[in-house]
Amino acid sequence: MIIILRLNHRIFRDKRITSHVALTARAFLADKIYYSGEKDSNLENSINKVSKQFGGNFNVEYCVSPIEFVKHKKSENYKIIHLTVYGLNLNECIKEIRKFKKILIIVGGEKVPIEYYDLADLNLSITNQPHSEVSSLAIFLHEFFKGKELSYELKNPKIKILPQRRGKKIIKLDHNS
Amino acid sequence: MIIILRLNHRIFRDKRITSHVALTARAFLADKIYYSGEKDSNLENSINKVSKQFGGNFNVEYCVSPIEFVKHKKSENYKIIHLTVYGLNLNECIKEIRKFKKILIIVGGEKVPIEYYDLADLNLSITNQPHSEVSSLAIFLHEFFKGKELSYELKNPKIKILPQRRGKKIIKLDHNS
Repeated sequence: MIIILRLNHRIFRDKRITSHVALTARAFLADKIYYSGEKDSNLENSINKVSKQFGGNFNVEYCVSPIEFVKHKKSENYKIIHLTVYGLNLNECIKEIRKFKKILIIVGGEKVPIEYYDLADLNLSITNQPHSEVSSLAIFLHEFFKGKELSYELKNPKIKILPQRRGKKIIKLDHNS
Repeated sequence: MIIILRLNHRIFRDKRITSHVALTARAFLADKIYYSGEKDSNLENSINKVSKQFGGNFNVEYCVSPIEFVKHKKSENYKIIHLTVYGLNLNECIKEIRKFKKILIIVGGEKVPIEYYDLADLNLSITNQPHSEVSSLAIFLHEFFKGKELSYELKNPKIKILPQRRGKKIIKLDHNS
């Protein structure tokens, strides 16, 4: 069970980044994303629409009190991993992490309160260079699942993309026929 | 030599996504990024500032005529790889790709003209699920370099982040002392 918490979403500034974080979480086989900050129905609808069309059970939920949420998940034996440029190297920790049964990944952005660094079981960095919460999350999940997402088929898609050397090929699947 | 071409940058809509694409290219050891669309000095300055502070030789350049640019690079024996959800599976192609000496990666976004699909030596997909050009680029480079970026030290940084289990540690390096 891998769930994500995206902190402090701001509709205007973060619209596309949070959407990319959520779609990456889904495509790289996380189970669910929570987000705090400003509630954003457009974000929720667009992610849920992708799930409906392309399959799987991934969904989005708004989180009013992220600190309380993290504490609660901790009490449920989730391991808390905070992705931050200041954290430990992935190579050093990945074996330890793969043993965890339930993981909550905190994806911040700018100015994450220090409380999250302290609550986390692990502050983890994907390179110690500044880049993107989107790529950090992708690499984390890719390594955690050992690349499983690259050939994984999500359940019950209505639309499926067929890989092509050139051009585009999409098929529609009718589960009622 | 791995260079990136980010197509059709729009200052208002893509500001942060293009910035994340560029920082990901840099942190995952590409050599340079070109971008077409709207010229954006703020973007260029912010990426060049990161390179100056955190090291390496990565830089950004505006590209006026992206199609001509791709044709030109093709004539210089660059292999053209277009990252798109419609492309072939990475697993099937990575061994072939690792043999390429010079690569131009095209990172699109929405509505990439079909001409790029035809110009590309390879249209390549990171999962056939919709997610993000940021995570696609990160996974591509991570796999191409076999994870080298996770422990790579870029040359001549002025600032260096020291990995920590908790908290933040940054050191300043004075190359003149």
